[in-house]
Amino acid sequence: MQIGMIGLGRMGANMCRRLLRAGHECVVNDHHTGNIDRLVGEGATGAASLADLVARLQRPRCVWMMLPAAVVEETVGALRGLLEAGDVLIDGGNSPHTDDIRRAAALAPDGIHYLDVGTSGGVWGLEQGYCLMIGGDATAVARLDPVFRALAPGMGAVPRTSGRDHAPSRAELGYLHCGASGAGHFVKMIHNGIEYGLMAAYAEGFNLLRHANSGSVARQADAETAPLDDPAAYQYDFNIGEIAELWRRGSVVRSWLLDLSAQALARDPELSGFAGRVSDSGEGRWALKAAVDTSVPVPVLSAALFARFASRGEDAFASQLLSAMRSEFGGHGEVAHPSDKP
Amino acid sequence: MQIGMIGLGRMGANMCRRLLRAGHECVVNDHHTGNIDRLVGEGATGAASLADLVARLQRPRCVWMMLPAAVVEETVGALRGLLEAGDVLIDGGNSPHTDDIRRAAALAPDGIHYLDVGTSGGVWGLEQGYCLMIGGDATAVARLDPVFRALAPGMGAVPRTSGRDHAPSRAELGYLHCGASGAGHFVKMIHNGIEYGLMAAYAEGFNLLRHANSGSVARQADAETAPLDDPAAYQYDFNIGEIAELWRRGSVVRSWLLDLSAQALARDPELSGFAGRVSDSGEGRWALKAAVDTSVPVPVLSAALFARFASRGEDAFASQLLSAMRSEFGGHGEVAHPSDKP
Amino acid sequence: MQIGMIGLGRMGANMCRRLLRAGHECVVNDHHTGNIDRLVGEGATGAASLADLVARLQRPRCVWMMLPAAVVEETVGALRGLLEAGDVLIDGGNSPHTDDIRRAAALAPDGIHYLDVGTSGGVWGLEQGYCLMIGGDATAVARLDPVFRALAPGMGAVPRTSGRDHAPSRAELGYLHCGASGAGHFVKMIHNGIEYGLMAAYAEGFNLLRHANSGSVARQADAETAPLDDPAAYQYDFNIGEIAELWRRGSVVRSWLLDLSAQALARDPELSGFAGRVSDSGEGRWALKAAVDTSVPVPVLSAALFARFASRGEDAFASQLLSAMRSEFGGHGEVAHPSDKP
Amino acid sequence: MQIGMIGLGRMGANMCRRLLRAGHECVVNDHHTGNIDRLVGEGATGAASLADLVARLQRPRCVWMMLPAAVVEETVGALRGLLEAGDVLIDGGNSPHTDDIRRAAALAPDGIHYLDVGTSGGVWGLEQGYCLMIGGDATAVARLDPVFRALAPGMGAVPRTSGRDHAPSRAELGYLHCGASGAGHFVKMIHNGIEYGLMAAYAEGFNLLRHANSGSVARQADAETAPLDDPAAYQYDFNIGEIAELWRRGSVVRSWLLDLSAQALARDPELSGFAGRVSDSGEGRWALKAAVDTSVPVPVLSAALFARFASRGEDAFASQLLSAMRSEFGGHGEVAHPSDKP
Repeated sequence: MQIGMIGLGRMGANMCRRLLRAGHECVVNDHHTGNIDRLVGEGATGAASLADLVARLQRPRCVWMMLPAAVVEETVGALRGLLEAGDVLIDGGNSPHTDDIRRAAALAPDGIHYLDVGTSGGVWGLEQGYCLMIGGDATAVARLDPVFRALAPGMGAVPRTSGRDHAPSRAELGYLHCGASGAGHFVKMIHNGIEYGLMAAYAEGFNLLRHANSGSVARQADAETAPLDDPAAYQYDFNIGEIAELWRRGSVVRSWLLDLSAQALARDPELSGFAGRVSDSGEGRWALKAAVDTSVPVPVLSAALFARFASRGEDAFASQLLSAMRSEFGGHGEVAHPSDKP
Repeated sequence: MQIGMIGLGRMGANMCRRLLRAGHECVVNDHHTGNIDRLVGEGATGAASLADLVARLQRPRCVWMMLPAAVVEETVGALRGLLEAGDVLIDGGNSPHTDDIRRAAALAPDGIHYLDVGTSGGVWGLEQGYCLMIGGDATAVARLDPVFRALAPGMGAVPRTSGRDHAPSRAELGYLHCGASGAGHFVKMIHNGIEYGLMAAYAEGFNLLRHANSGSVARQADAETAPLDDPAAYQYDFNIGEIAELWRRGSVVRSWLLDLSAQALARDPELSGFAGRVSDSGEGRWALKAAVDTSVPVPVLSAALFARFASRGEDAFASQLLSAMRSEFGGHGEVAHPSDKP
Repeated sequence: MQIGMIGLGRMGANMCRRLLRAGHECVVNDHHTGNIDRLVGEGATGAASLADLVARLQRPRCVWMMLPAAVVEETVGALRGLLEAGDVLIDGGNSPHTDDIRRAAALAPDGIHYLDVGTSGGVWGLEQGYCLMIGGDATAVARLDPVFRALAPGMGAVPRTSGRDHAPSRAELGYLHCGASGAGHFVKMIHNGIEYGLMAAYAEGFNLLRHANSGSVARQADAETAPLDDPAAYQYDFNIGEIAELWRRGSVVRSWLLDLSAQALARDPELSGFAGRVSDSGEGRWALKAAVDTSVPVPVLSAALFARFASRGEDAFASQLLSAMRSEFGGHGEVAHPSDKP
Repeated sequence: MQIGMIGLGRMGANMCRRLLRAGHECVVNDHHTGNIDRLVGEGATGAASLADLVARLQRPRCVWMMLPAAVVEETVGALRGLLEAGDVLIDGGNSPHTDDIRRAAALAPDGIHYLDVGTSGGVWGLEQGYCLMIGGDATAVARLDPVFRALAPGMGAVPRTSGRDHAPSRAELGYLHCGASGAGHFVKMIHNGIEYGLMAAYAEGFNLLRHANSGSVARQADAETAPLDDPAAYQYDFNIGEIAELWRRGSVVRSWLLDLSAQALARDPELSGFAGRVSDSGEGRWALKAAVDTSVPVPVLSAALFARFASRGEDAFASQLLSAMRSEFGGHGEVAHPSDKP
């Protein structure tokens, strides 16, 4: 099939490459000409503008946006005047699912099908395939089946779930029509929420391993600091990278995120290249808001998100107020850290 | 009555003063001679050593320790050889309640009554009185009633709970025999656990108020950073000190900790004297362990404790690992903070 | 002054009474005629409709809505056609602050001043006064000063914050102009978020006290159940009502919510009248969303909200999945509760 | 090699089978004769008692205990009198690491090597191998290398971490000498803590997916219940089993626990066989205590544990107190659930 791809960043460019490898045709546009040229060199057709891209596609067209959430609105607006009834427009980036509902409804009178496709896979997607969570009109989804199939990982080496012994379902191939407009981004949003929780579970666990030598480190002995009950119990200097590697085989906690952790720790067990200022790119926040809307308790997902906020210092004033209260009721002063400058 | 007080720090010294004011007699000891001298100047009798203190007390004696948890064990050991059957030994500091159970059992064969008295009140106790949570043998507790009554706040200006219209109970006077050995420190431990939770609730709320101008602050615009959905909704520059003051009257959140917060914020709305490195002195930790032992969910109390740990940087390696994982799966780099040095 | 009050529920009716007592004049409307009649009997002027209410007020008018959030929108719409330039319209209920911003902007072209007034005080407000958090145009706020002053608690018996020795500020009287439109409801929203956190801290603490006898209760002994490490440490049958009463005097955790807890526990220490299905009425949710928007970590406030969700069974499917996973990886069955029906 | 295995439950029996398959010799004991007989039928040598088991082993012996934590102490005591210098005793169950430290020190004077081996793998270990986390004396660990290697999964199909291109390390084969006595159980404890966090992340996420139709379910409309802001955004009836299956391929959240979740959901998407009363078997609790001891913030791991406590109703009194407070300050009644019996 022929796909128009708008946005040739880390994700969009590799998705084109994977489509090209599968024999699909890509017409590509990006606001950096260099990104277009590179893909053209790999077999894609370049388009100098949105209008040019639309013009180069046969009807009914398929246009896939792989853009930062912030520019999707204007791009949809521009395409609205260019696309025609029967065309399909896809948002494969990370938009809130309520935007999809609104945009799909706005484009429907013109006969334009709007699909939202949550896309997971990161920099590994080119080789391993992209996990695709699709929302929108069933007919349009069916028409694009070859495209989704080419992007998705396929069954690969993952063992089949017992009981699934018929022809593989689309989910088993790594893509799924999840439901009506917004469903794809909704499922992707929950996916990212879970991702934050999983990451935090590992991060806390490895941090615990790293503190397993607390008993051998002199702890400040003053009235402000709780003494360690049993220093002899915390005398371990673990090789954290080896433990991450160990858990990859046979343990209950094995996962792809653990594989990545093992990779990072093998490269540098101290992780000294990272300051620990952890970003979050939106979907984890929306998941938390969805939980609030639907009355679902998500103590783990929220704790994971808030730990990221705190890692960026957003808890500073709260902590100052805690110290201030302690000073007021007990005359407690703050204890300087051994490593604090004088 | 006659009380022997060992430990003349912030708490012990003021408790002596309050006892002296109530007409009780205090024999005092401390490892700083200056602390003894100061109390002697205010009417106490000085004792040069534990033996001297015991010798100066009439039988049956009452010895009250107001010491850091770390030195209680050795002091009890030393006193064991000095005290006699019928004497009462009190630990008024912050010991784990399991130590009380053990020590009371160890002293019982010698006829020495061991009481644990959780003591709340901080630097305000001298004027306002100390809230006393008492554990141990009922007979010994009854004998010391005048001492507890003198230390406790009394009914004061606190309105009576409706239905309590008989002679005030001891709880209404601010002291209570909570149960057998360890009960006093157990209740104090829970008290401190609650205290952490309350403090964190205010701290988080005021931090939210402080961020209410987020919409007017330029947020970094890049793929790593979630954009603020609705900047116009976050344009408030609140006078946080005035809000704390406001809530002191008529609101649901009024409390003594709010009074103290208002005080601190009145003094300096920026709280610039505090770095936000929040100590914890042990009881909040024991409360969490007790929750684990007794299968009680305490998500709020634990979150409050962990925020203190994080305020001291103990989350550093966890955050680094989160950044490392993000780098591995998505090629995400860390975003430098605007205020970070180049 | 003359006030038009729309909505004579628990809050609105008592606020009228407090205004009448202070010598103000109230014109009242409610969709239940009985509520109007009752207030007329106490000195208010009844109004049969919104139009009637507006007609009975002298210009510039002051109309105060004390309505459920769900009907504010239509009421504002109806009043828009009735009010005139210079009039003031107040939303004293629990609306999201973003609604205030939108409504104030919509009414501004007509010269109608829209104020948002977060109101705390519950059923106690009639006697104790209402804590008022006010947002909107400063001129309108100034004009209504006598009304706010009458509703607010005044300085009362609350000791002044040290350093505040001049004429009392409005905050010290229990009302405050917090900022532009929405500021009042924003501050009220944070107030309620804190309220949830405080309540949860007490609830967890008292629950811990209640489980302090876990060691004397036979715990199921099987491979699915962690044994209690030290049963002897958990043998206390605490009088929880007495402990709540005790803490009211001299302790760090004293507060109005503790007063109320002591009241409830004095009435029935088992709280058997309550099933433990805890409602939340919206502001705590908005506070959490605001935290997400502004990147403020609120682990305590969110844990408190989620505990309410869970108390209503909203965690059911999550728990089932946990059990299902345990069954899959370890063959673990669920352990029936001793009290479960066979 | 020759191994004595004590405890032939789910874990112990399968470990023997895996050892027998690898050509090792097993002498087995259990307090159920039937369990012994079954293994004898599969090639093991039966031992009628601990003494018999020890007698049947050649020196230096290797005795492996695979027992509930509660009976390890007495078994170690009994074996102490039977084993001799140079023998190795292994605790492969789930004991706290402090017990290992104590026991290893107690047995050292007799020349008995005590190893702690955290063992992960559950019912899948027989086929897939067991992930082994080993603590104790290096010489003894080295001697038992063939046994550990036979039990461990080996490299299997897990792709090697990049940079690890030499001969596979033991961690890559699925077993690791983590450190001195207690190190094995310490690492296993953290492993289980992480496991709880991962499980909770999935459970919360799938629960969110399940509530994605909240907008189509009538929510109670009263002052006690927050209305859903945007019902149109929550109209999805997701096929949760298909989504679990989908995420197994190419997504960031793929893991073995997700494989198991997909399995359970494929079997019954309603999980109706599970009441949602989630057990915890101890290690997650110890991990939390270790975090408290070492000042490591673990908001996710603790939230996961507390959700299990709450799933068993341990939050009941806390919730009742919340309702009681709401009743006191606002006159709020509890809202009956639609499904509540009248």
